[in-house]
Amino acid sequence: MEGGIYLSMQVRQMRGDSILVVESVGEGVEDLAPGDHVVPIFNGECGTCAYCHSSATNLCGTYRVDAFKSTMVSDNGTRFSVVNTSGDTVPVYHFLNTSTFAEYTVLDAACAVKINPAAPLEKMCLLSCGISTGVGAAWNTANVSKGSTVAIFGLGAVGLAVGEGARIRGASRIIGVDINPEKFAKGKEMGITDFINPKACGKPVHEVIKELTDGGVDYSFECSGNVDVLREAFVSTHDGWGLTVVLGIHPTPRMMPLHPMELFDGRRITGCTFGDFKGKSQLPLLVDQCMKGEVKINFDGFITHEMPFSEINEAFRLLEEGKSLRCVLRL
Amino acid sequence: MEGGIYLSMQVRQMRGDSILVVESVGEGVEDLAPGDHVVPIFNGECGTCAYCHSSATNLCGTYRVDAFKSTMVSDNGTRFSVVNTSGDTVPVYHFLNTSTFAEYTVLDAACAVKINPAAPLEKMCLLSCGISTGVGAAWNTANVSKGSTVAIFGLGAVGLAVGEGARIRGASRIIGVDINPEKFAKGKEMGITDFINPKACGKPVHEVIKELTDGGVDYSFECSGNVDVLREAFVSTHDGWGLTVVLGIHPTPRMMPLHPMELFDGRRITGCTFGDFKGKSQLPLLVDQCMKGEVKINFDGFITHEMPFSEINEAFRLLEEGKSLRCVLRL
Repeated sequence: MEGGIYLSMQVRQMRGDSILVVESVGEGVEDLAPGDHVVPIFNGECGTCAYCHSSATNLCGTYRVDAFKSTMVSDNGTRFSVVNTSGDTVPVYHFLNTSTFAEYTVLDAACAVKINPAAPLEKMCLLSCGISTGVGAAWNTANVSKGSTVAIFGLGAVGLAVGEGARIRGASRIIGVDINPEKFAKGKEMGITDFINPKACGKPVHEVIKELTDGGVDYSFECSGNVDVLREAFVSTHDGWGLTVVLGIHPTPRMMPLHPMELFDGRRITGCTFGDFKGKSQLPLLVDQCMKGEVKINFDGFITHEMPFSEINEAFRLLEEGKSLRCVLRL
Repeated sequence: MEGGIYLSMQVRQMRGDSILVVESVGEGVEDLAPGDHVVPIFNGECGTCAYCHSSATNLCGTYRVDAFKSTMVSDNGTRFSVVNTSGDTVPVYHFLNTSTFAEYTVLDAACAVKINPAAPLEKMCLLSCGISTGVGAAWNTANVSKGSTVAIFGLGAVGLAVGEGARIRGASRIIGVDINPEKFAKGKEMGITDFINPKACGKPVHEVIKELTDGGVDYSFECSGNVDVLREAFVSTHDGWGLTVVLGIHPTPRMMPLHPMELFDGRRITGCTFGDFKGKSQLPLLVDQCMKGEVKINFDGFITHEMPFSEINEAFRLLEEGKSLRCVLRL
């Protein structure tokens, strides 16, 4: 299969963040070989299309994230099957270009990022989504500058990774917003300087933020998936130059509650996929920088649990209840 | 009155675009003197606030545009009065920082841009709003690049000025969209290369634009004040890097019909006030560049009518019916 790659999974992680060791490669795959350590990415990079050639986007024309696609991009087929209870052989479908809740998987080479084999697998798996997305949102999408002010709405792994990214850039104030006050202790470890619980602050969050920051933050990050929170994030930024980065997945049909005239106050809003990292081009360098200590991302802080794969349902429960950030599952 | 300036108007123009000659200046005004030629701007620049010091915005903290303010910014007072039919003296209120439908007016020095006195008054008045807004939207807000593709929704003076700005930047294709096909002849003069009449094209405009441009334009400009048109402008841009600049005034309470997940396609949207020009800092240079021929803006193309001030109602009628772009009124 041209462009295919057969990978054996060593370590996996909630939400599909994972790291793999290449078992074999398909015809035409030149940048990967058996034994390579790779980070699978849900937002692939073919490296040759107009999108990949553009510095303005990390959305590959062919392998970009598509949550509704359940087959391989290369041939619209599947690679696995099971015999069901009726004795019929039925396909096992793919998910998010990676399909990593399995001991072995197959993915397109465009979705496998070769990294330094000396990098610790159980940490690097976090680059598969959470850390890359949050840190990249601060660095690439918002380009957070030294001394600036930041508000993060939703302190899951992505929100905390935004905090890491902002802290590394030297933001002077990083305000975390979450209805779960248990997040604050972890947030403090990750560089968050102030915490607001919307259920306890007695007035709209944006009013509190404007008081804290002399008119609003320079950057806000929406990591909640709720459009009312998205609006609060938007109006919490400083007029004239505030930027809101949307990272949350919004499952309802509700449109953004923003009026076009509000754009004339100089606030901007933008989405962010995978931290605007071009995965195959940029993640290997980030791994090397982390290993050399040039970039100090607190990987350990994100790994709150480790479990055998058999306890995956317990791991999901902890995540849903807000009790874990990332649980590394071992096969 | 500190910061005040007393101006005698020489040439005026629909929508308040105008040019003035300074009659006298108030206490504390140092950058203007009697006899100076000034362009009044509805979006002032004090030059000293945090906003004016920021390169990210042209919204002055004190003198920014405010359509609901009907007094002088400096003291919340008025400068004119009339005796009404009951014999009472009543104030004449101000509008948009300029109040230029009058032979004499008073405005804050922050709203008066001194320009080269050799510049022709009857053309430079167009810099007071229409041309600055449209050209600046292309140059400053969108930063239209050579060879790029552009769509303009609404071909009034602002939309056509966007076309001028895009043409000067070397855009390869400039698509004009308007339900009034009479706009096309004028549009051609102003550098618009293609024209779409939404009432005659038989399918959604964004589909036509995607066919014309291999997936969408790099930049779209919404100059209509209609949120459904705003949506068409947004989805007409290329995914991954498309930018929509909102210039239209949207008077209804309808929110933007955009879903947050649509931001993940990499399209961005932003507002634009006065072409993101800092009026007092940047317009004098633009005037000089136009006079030297370094920048070739087709001022004449925008002036479709000239009338005595007594015919102002006829001038408004022509504008409302889409039969004029700018009508210069002479006092």
